[in-house]
Amino acid sequence: MTRSPLALAALSLAIATPSNATSPPKWTLGDQAQKALEEDKTAWDFLEGITTEVGPRMAGTEAEARGRSWAVQWLTRNGFANVIEEPYDMQTWVRGEEKAEVTVPYAQPMRITALGTSASTGPDGIEAEVVYFPTYAHLQAAEPGSLNGKIAFISHDMRPTQDGSGYGFAGPARWTGAGLAASKGAIATVIRSIGTENHRTPHTGGTTFPEGVAATPAGALSNPDADNLERIFARQPRSVRMKLVLTPRDLGTTKSGNVTGEIVGRDPSLPPVLLACHLDSWDLGTGAIDDGAGCAIIAAAAKQVAAHGKPLRTIRVLFAGAEETGLWGSKAYAAAHKDEPFLLGIESDFGADRIWRIDSNFTKTDADLYAQLSAAVAPFGVAPSMQQAGGGADLNVVREQKGALVDLQQDGTRYFDLHHTPDDTLDKVDPVQLRQNVAVWTAVVGTLANRANGIKLAE
Amino acid sequence: MTRSPLALAALSLAIATPSNATSPPKWTLGDQAQKALEEDKTAWDFLEGITTEVGPRMAGTEAEARGRSWAVQWLTRNGFANVIEEPYDMQTWVRGEEKAEVTVPYAQPMRITALGTSASTGPDGIEAEVVYFPTYAHLQAAEPGSLNGKIAFISHDMRPTQDGSGYGFAGPARWTGAGLAASKGAIATVIRSIGTENHRTPHTGGTTFPEGVAATPAGALSNPDADNLERIFARQPRSVRMKLVLTPRDLGTTKSGNVTGEIVGRDPSLPPVLLACHLDSWDLGTGAIDDGAGCAIIAAAAKQVAAHGKPLRTIRVLFAGAEETGLWGSKAYAAAHKDEPFLLGIESDFGADRIWRIDSNFTKTDADLYAQLSAAVAPFGVAPSMQQAGGGADLNVVREQKGALVDLQQDGTRYFDLHHTPDDTLDKVDPVQLRQNVAVWTAVVGTLANRANGIKLAE
Repeated sequence: MTRSPLALAALSLAIATPSNATSPPKWTLGDQAQKALEEDKTAWDFLEGITTEVGPRMAGTEAEARGRSWAVQWLTRNGFANVIEEPYDMQTWVRGEEKAEVTVPYAQPMRITALGTSASTGPDGIEAEVVYFPTYAHLQAAEPGSLNGKIAFISHDMRPTQDGSGYGFAGPARWTGAGLAASKGAIATVIRSIGTENHRTPHTGGTTFPEGVAATPAGALSNPDADNLERIFARQPRSVRMKLVLTPRDLGTTKSGNVTGEIVGRDPSLPPVLLACHLDSWDLGTGAIDDGAGCAIIAAAAKQVAAHGKPLRTIRVLFAGAEETGLWGSKAYAAAHKDEPFLLGIESDFGADRIWRIDSNFTKTDADLYAQLSAAVAPFGVAPSMQQAGGGADLNVVREQKGALVDLQQDGTRYFDLHHTPDDTLDKVDPVQLRQNVAVWTAVVGTLANRANGIKLAE
Repeated sequence: MTRSPLALAALSLAIATPSNATSPPKWTLGDQAQKALEEDKTAWDFLEGITTEVGPRMAGTEAEARGRSWAVQWLTRNGFANVIEEPYDMQTWVRGEEKAEVTVPYAQPMRITALGTSASTGPDGIEAEVVYFPTYAHLQAAEPGSLNGKIAFISHDMRPTQDGSGYGFAGPARWTGAGLAASKGAIATVIRSIGTENHRTPHTGGTTFPEGVAATPAGALSNPDADNLERIFARQPRSVRMKLVLTPRDLGTTKSGNVTGEIVGRDPSLPPVLLACHLDSWDLGTGAIDDGAGCAIIAAAAKQVAAHGKPLRTIRVLFAGAEETGLWGSKAYAAAHKDEPFLLGIESDFGADRIWRIDSNFTKTDADLYAQLSAAVAPFGVAPSMQQAGGGADLNVVREQKGALVDLQQDGTRYFDLHHTPDDTLDKVDPVQLRQNVAVWTAVVGTLANRANGIKLAE
């Protein structure tokens, strides 16, 4: 791309002020965002730091606690005020040994990882007949009791989508598949990974069992293993058996916490702008794209806005804890801050690839503000939309207050290649796209933090 | 590509025989190879079958034995004659548990896999200071005794090359790095994977210790882990410690074997053409590209040549055993068949991507034959060269006889993304490129098997 938005912005300012052509053009928020696009080092510093110096940050564990301490130090060192931890209790699940093998008709090992809340098979494992369900709908159609004593295999396939909607289509196989199979008698469930690549790195993630249905062992096979198991079923559909050894355990109640820090505004009495991400990660990777990048982006943007000049409103960053295993941090924050007003909430939790679309929940009701935000992000290739923003997982506090939300939609085409896998590591982050995120966030957060008025959510 | 070599070949035949324009053109070997390019199903049938019905085939184990039984049945079912197993004894090493973690200064787990012949750390593992060597040359320069009680980390980086030469540059870090470090006092060695991708799937492979140097634990970190460890060293160069748990074990002497089968020629008294691959694989993947594909290609080509018409000479396929852990099958075959003459040997053992170059060891001495072979493969985009063919690992028998060799060089650009990893699975094979291999092999093997004369290797 040879256009320089910075040069164009300077030019338009020069044209707009012909009567004062000799004085230097004002350094605008747009200029600051453009500078972030070209030069921001803060986001990378955060992301390289937390993945190198902390690594995986499993919810409720001492590794997550080390992540909080690290984040407190980093925010303080980077000029944030009022940096605090807000602790809460949670129920903590941790991974154990994990092995899978086909025993009949063709003995061979498979790569598996346990799903969050999976029960243990015990160290000796379980061995049983496997029943194949090509999709979640096939499992739904199975008769009650038809899986008694058997292992369900749900091979529901996921394809990449830019807007992440493929997760909504395939996700139920992981979110509720094991519970559904257990309710029909299954003693364990293996699913095809909810992921879009073909590496032997299965995708973990949470699963839930319905009220009254005891948790069973539940794991995800990598896509190549699921392909292989499908081929085995194609050859021998009525005699496939597997052995599973999954030994996760519940640690009971442990401590977790949220971390917040602020860029204090010129009028701290005004409701702040809330920027959210989550600091915990699954244990398999180092939590680079999920969600170290989100915290890196929001913190870097807050710092870029501050560099442009002290904003009118306070900007608060919320590094939520324990998102992955049940939104524990989001819920605790919503409960603790239910009476505190916010101007608006925005979250970054979809990797580090470029932002391509801006959604809000006031696009019609406060069209002037939406137009202003859309114009601010347009130089970075971000399109407006009529989609309703829902806010990220850690914005329960704003949702429960029925507050204003913006979603800065990131390109999710390759997100589910990495999501919840060992491959969620720093090398997967493109520094150029990471800076585009910081630039877009700078433009949006700067606009909002300097807004005197509230946001109209009803016509 | 819109050119149709088949149509062109038919056209040129029609032009060449104007006096007999009404009789059908002769079905040439080139036509047969073109048909293989478009339609061959045999190679995929073999490769899908062995990866699905057998899976990993670690040298010297019962899994390799199941692979041999499977191959004997497949060859017999596919019309090969004289299908036999030739057993031999070997020393067998198998993987155990494998874990690595940085303990100081930043605790975090790392992904490791043991290298073949690695010693065991014992189940409790070892923990020690790590010394960083950016390249193999840095380790070579280390003083004797300087690694006493320490773990060596060799981070020698590998880049993709089409001709595989990157393996020659980076490979010594794996082949002899642990032995060199041990000779300078190291109690263990971890290397950056000899691989060209950035997944958390470390690359295994053999390593050797010099005479008089006891084997130590030795493993490979995935590239993202090696990157992370380098970043840790950049922050805290003098205080990095790791814990390793690697519990491989020697099984002592076990049985392995080679499998051969033949397309018997019209004159079985003539020295046969020997096509080689290896049937064993590392245990981490299912041995699709290394070297299921090679066996698939040579068997399919032999069958294509037979489909064109009974060849003059016998074609023998050698599915060698136990290549990965020390060429046990190749050595046993060379010893058992040292007095049997062969016209020539060719091996396929570099994945399943397209063949781009033909090398021989008679390019100057039997230029007519080399020209004939080059012309036969040119329609498939294969270029001639002046490189000297060395033959594959399983062709010791031909090399020791100083016999004729052809190398059909495959594109290795992505081979070391997969080589010796869990990701060596069927889904990585491109069926179109696999058929190009079969087509090229059909053209070459058909030409050689129908040659009455020997091959001139000296001027």
